[in-house]
Amino acid sequence: MYTVYDFDGSGNGYKVWLLLHFLGEKYERVRVNVLKGETHSDDFLKINPVGKIPALVLEDGRALPESNAIMHYLAEGTPWLPDDRFAHAQVLSWTYFEQYSHEPNIAVLRFWRHFLEMTPELEAQAPEKEKKSHAALAVMEKQLAYTDWLVGNGPTIADIALYAYTHVADEGGISLADYPGINRWLDRFASLPNYVPITYHD
Amino acid sequence: MYTVYDFDGSGNGYKVWLLLHFLGEKYERVRVNVLKGETHSDDFLKINPVGKIPALVLEDGRALPESNAIMHYLAEGTPWLPDDRFAHAQVLSWTYFEQYSHEPNIAVLRFWRHFLEMTPELEAQAPEKEKKSHAALAVMEKQLAYTDWLVGNGPTIADIALYAYTHVADEGGISLADYPGINRWLDRFASLPNYVPITYHD
Ligand SMILES: N[C@@H](CCC(=O)N[C@@H](CS)C(=O)NCC(=O)O)C(=O)O
Ligand SMILES: N[C@@H](CCC(=O)N[C@@H](CS)C(=O)NCC(=O)O)C(=O)O
Repeated sequence: MYTVYDFDGSGNGYKVWLLLHFLGEKYERVRVNVLKGETHSDDFLKINPVGKIPALVLEDGRALPESNAIMHYLAEGTPWLPDDRFAHAQVLSWTYFEQYSHEPNIAVLRFWRHFLEMTPELEAQAPEKEKKSHAALAVMEKQLAYTDWLVGNGPTIADIALYAYTHVADEGGISLADYPGINRWLDRFASLPNYVPITYHD
Repeated sequence: MYTVYDFDGSGNGYKVWLLLHFLGEKYERVRVNVLKGETHSDDFLKINPVGKIPALVLEDGRALPESNAIMHYLAEGTPWLPDDRFAHAQVLSWTYFEQYSHEPNIAVLRFWRHFLEMTPELEAQAPEKEKKSHAALAVMEKQLAYTDWLVGNGPTIADIALYAYTHVADEGGISLADYPGINRWLDRFASLPNYVPITYHD
């Protein structure tokens, strides 16, 4: 059985156990409190030296950090990660886009506004992050206005990676009103078999 | 033959054509001037809707953005990307670490200090980025103090991803003096057959 180190409400953690639900795999979820600095304890740093959740620990004790690398590991050989060499690379391309251009804006605004107390210092950085959030959403809309899924004809880990924080963007003050393609995709995604919401408790 | 859209001095672009040198593959390099906004021209946005170099264009015209996804595409089936499922995921894990915890600090400081004129606004953000740069280097050092390469017994695209900006960290004001493992690894890397420097011109 897999062990997933997670923090309730984290979209990066959600990616991992949501995929495990889709795949019908068993897992145990261990909570690490990010707000109390528990990701920087000596014990947790042995699991992930970067000091961040999520991390996946295999039955034999080997540990893997980084949400999208964990999804790649779990999805290999399943329809969630295409075999075709170019489609496979396109899936990865969206996940790097997510980590570089989407998450640092959309997820960070949500963290500030939903999990922390806003400070004047953070407020000063918000407009730039709002602008970049909408730039990232516009890139997604360019695709999802025309196709059901980000790559190919079915859902992949690229969709999970980008669903995780897009569907809760409003919690960071980012409105999705102007993105009809994204909204249709969010509904389509939430109708998938074995879908569970980010608030799911086990 | 591959076409690589690039900007001279970009570490993200360097990753792609350095790997092509290592693999002995032919390519054409097309320069897109980031400082003049050329990545946001209508023509370039057709290649990468995100408006960033690098992008790889295949002989049949299909385009792939994101440096690390491009490397994954090119390296598949070569020793630069292990087949073993767990080692493969570990390589990817380092590349996500690079995009999330390393590049946004080390590469961005270099961009500000080496390519732009520093402004008081940027200077105010520098201490936080310096702190995070050293945190990222400390994570690499934890590994490279003990092993020759980031994953397994030979160089992989994880090493290329992290070499790209680490070896020019000083151009962003980040000293590598306190990281002996990283320094040995940089020397080892630069001795690889077919290595070319980031300043290479074709
Ligand atoms: N690139 C990482 C990001 C993970 C991340 O940012 N985790 C946050 C919670 S969502 C965390 O653990 N932060 C604690 C810290 O940085 O101290 C991934 O995709 O897994
Ligand atoms: N996540 C991207 C980052 C690429 C990137 O940041 N490219 C910069 C140059 S190094 C760029 O084209 N910037 C232009 C812009 O953002 O307008 C990758 O790894 O390829």
